[in-house]
Amino acid sequence: MELDTASGKTLYEQIYEYIRDEIRRGAIRRGDRLPSTRLLAEHLDVSRSTAQLAYEQLLSEGYIESVPCKGYFVCQIDELYCLDRQPADRREPAPRGESRFRYDFTPNGIDLDHFPFAVWRKLNREVLQADEKELFHLGDAKGERELREVISVYLHQARGVRVRPEQVLVGAGNDYLLMLLSRLLGTGRRIAMESPTYRHAWDIFERLGYECAAVPVDRYGMDVKKLGESGADVAYVMPSHQYPLGIVMPVRRRQELLRWAEEKEGRYLIEDDYDSEFRYVGKPVPSLQGSDQSGRVVYIGTFSKSIAPAIRISYLVLPEGLLDRYEQAGRSFSSTVSRIDQRVLQLFMERGYYERHLNKMRALYKSKHDLLLSEIRKLSCVEQVTGHHAGVHLLLRLRPGDSEAERIEQAARAGVKVYPLSEYCIDRTGCEPTILLGYATMTEEEIRAAAALLAGAWS
Amino acid sequence: MELDTASGKTLYEQIYEYIRDEIRRGAIRRGDRLPSTRLLAEHLDVSRSTAQLAYEQLLSEGYIESVPCKGYFVCQIDELYCLDRQPADRREPAPRGESRFRYDFTPNGIDLDHFPFAVWRKLNREVLQADEKELFHLGDAKGERELREVISVYLHQARGVRVRPEQVLVGAGNDYLLMLLSRLLGTGRRIAMESPTYRHAWDIFERLGYECAAVPVDRYGMDVKKLGESGADVAYVMPSHQYPLGIVMPVRRRQELLRWAEEKEGRYLIEDDYDSEFRYVGKPVPSLQGSDQSGRVVYIGTFSKSIAPAIRISYLVLPEGLLDRYEQAGRSFSSTVSRIDQRVLQLFMERGYYERHLNKMRALYKSKHDLLLSEIRKLSCVEQVTGHHAGVHLLLRLRPGDSEAERIEQAARAGVKVYPLSEYCIDRTGCEPTILLGYATMTEEEIRAAAALLAGAWS
Repeated sequence: MELDTASGKTLYEQIYEYIRDEIRRGAIRRGDRLPSTRLLAEHLDVSRSTAQLAYEQLLSEGYIESVPCKGYFVCQIDELYCLDRQPADRREPAPRGESRFRYDFTPNGIDLDHFPFAVWRKLNREVLQADEKELFHLGDAKGERELREVISVYLHQARGVRVRPEQVLVGAGNDYLLMLLSRLLGTGRRIAMESPTYRHAWDIFERLGYECAAVPVDRYGMDVKKLGESGADVAYVMPSHQYPLGIVMPVRRRQELLRWAEEKEGRYLIEDDYDSEFRYVGKPVPSLQGSDQSGRVVYIGTFSKSIAPAIRISYLVLPEGLLDRYEQAGRSFSSTVSRIDQRVLQLFMERGYYERHLNKMRALYKSKHDLLLSEIRKLSCVEQVTGHHAGVHLLLRLRPGDSEAERIEQAARAGVKVYPLSEYCIDRTGCEPTILLGYATMTEEEIRAAAALLAGAWS
Repeated sequence: MELDTASGKTLYEQIYEYIRDEIRRGAIRRGDRLPSTRLLAEHLDVSRSTAQLAYEQLLSEGYIESVPCKGYFVCQIDELYCLDRQPADRREPAPRGESRFRYDFTPNGIDLDHFPFAVWRKLNREVLQADEKELFHLGDAKGERELREVISVYLHQARGVRVRPEQVLVGAGNDYLLMLLSRLLGTGRRIAMESPTYRHAWDIFERLGYECAAVPVDRYGMDVKKLGESGADVAYVMPSHQYPLGIVMPVRRRQELLRWAEEKEGRYLIEDDYDSEFRYVGKPVPSLQGSDQSGRVVYIGTFSKSIAPAIRISYLVLPEGLLDRYEQAGRSFSSTVSRIDQRVLQLFMERGYYERHLNKMRALYKSKHDLLLSEIRKLSCVEQVTGHHAGVHLLLRLRPGDSEAERIEQAARAGVKVYPLSEYCIDRTGCEPTILLGYATMTEEEIRAAAALLAGAWS
């Protein structure tokens, strides 16, 4: 062993690392006895306490063990894990390729350029600094009480949801919460969904074993007469801002839906209030849940759109009947959200950062919305623009006889990705040729440039 | 409006806050026009740019809007959320009461006194600092590729698991992963579990709609003959360290189990390798999955025991057949773990912190284990101590005719909580009067003091 006094490392570290590496590569084997600290110190011409420090490090990391009156022996570590030994096979392809589009009007993105990273970082640091140990134990299956309280207050004040914190269930994303909900609703359910609808939710319900029925929407939302004929006992709706059509369901239709749910025992409405935070004109529309007198509405919301998709925090508000079922049949499932992340979100909301962030994003999205709206209205092929004043996408209805596919192909040739409404329609129900343009992920300059390319491509 | 030049706040902040609060409390209403910046500046005797800064802040937060050629108008915010307005009702009881026990030998805890909080914090800070925006977008449904690679290497080297990163599925805890797995295995399955077993897993499988069958264990683990008679087509086993008995399944029994699985199409073994990191004597026993030649073993592991329960990260290793099913039927379910947390864990493993932490914890647990073992062997009522040399609890078999309930009551009167084996037994299958003592959450001083109390209570 060569010790280097000029090296940045202390002598004891050098001794420790040398012996550790010898053990790792098998040069010193399990059960071998190491020299005593006195002998080692003499041999290396270091102090005995230096040799002792090195051995203590090896002991504490489990490389050697001390047998009283006998000395230090090497532990078995041959099968212990040592990451730098063998790389894994890398057969899986890279997840994302280069896009062939210069501009992408995706209706599913969010603007992360204005996310308050500094605040998020600060809160993370604060949470990890304080009260450390307790936060690393397993928390409440429903989510932390404090976070559920903050969410309740928010939902009450911003969305008119009638909710006690006990009804709130925090989970790692909508898909997970719908999976858990399906355990509470029971199997063999037939679920009605709007057509067009949010395809991802349709897929999820099918994978969860629901029978899905597409119910057409008219200008007020889901057709309740057709819902009655569908044989469904659960209906999934987005009354505040239907996706993708952007319809706001008027009070009368809401009452009809609630009456449908009350007509038979065990019927439920799932209200997905995915992006109600972003409304640019008029008063925010209160939730359907707020008008529910008989506990038939399950409310689901997410922070994916309003904060960031990667934080994986959504919530359910369960009506009393399902809450009882949850306490019996659902509470066994441990929480799916890290308590640290829950605490960070709680502070983010409690200290007004969430409000400020929403207000900022609303202003930003509104300004992108206004810009795209004015650019798009110049296009001659567009019969009508709908879905404006809220959310983060617009719909361009094409003139009768025009072709979605052709317009999309023309846009693609100009390097602009736009989206067909027909992709959201089940069995082509309720589909007129319409193009979707999402603007959340684009800057105003990009919107202007992409709109100019579209004008050229579609002229 | 009174401006205070001696206050710590800038003049523009004071103006902004004043107007904001007036809007919030409704003194200035939606649609009201604010004075022009020129008039406001004159009125308050400040510079026009100060007034402009205040208005810009109000604009960016969405309190006011600017209408070209007309001026600044108050936006509607009446129904916007404002957390300090109305507290939620607090009917739910506080989750945890004071324990009536001075010492608690819970077999389910972990020692968090030695968690490397400083490292965890440092990595969190590093991850949140770098490459920020991308990490906040939705990630791979299976978990981040980089983390799955690190987990694969770890499982290969530490546990002998034969795994490509593609087979790894990262999720928010075992319960969630078992829920997802139940979607892949399909409904109507009958699952065999060891008795005694991990009761929480039994509950979870029941809640997921499996029919559960208790199969007795002999000294080598699950009785394969009885498994064959049970009619089950899935068996859940813990071959490396059976919970709660601590049995290590020998090679021959493993081969019998694998042969059972191979006998019929669609049979699977779920190998729960929940705490194999902690073994104090002899070589670590490789996983059952590593001996599986025909893709019948689903391997599940967790960081709850080896890092902390609250981080909510577990993983499945799917055999090829179920991997195909996942790609068809499971990939729709979005990831349940924050990408930030995944990256932190990846760095924790990649940079050797995990290895060091495991080695440190192994040494700590071993020393608690040795102490408890020597204390407990002095007790006259104990016929045999089993389950030692691994995990974080011991089993004390009582003499024939002795009563678990009585011993537990005696311990309770002395202020010590101990656990009965019978709670883990299904239909009392495989149960001799036995007491469980977990030592993970106790310090050595506490173990010594609690053992002395037990000696008194049981003498």
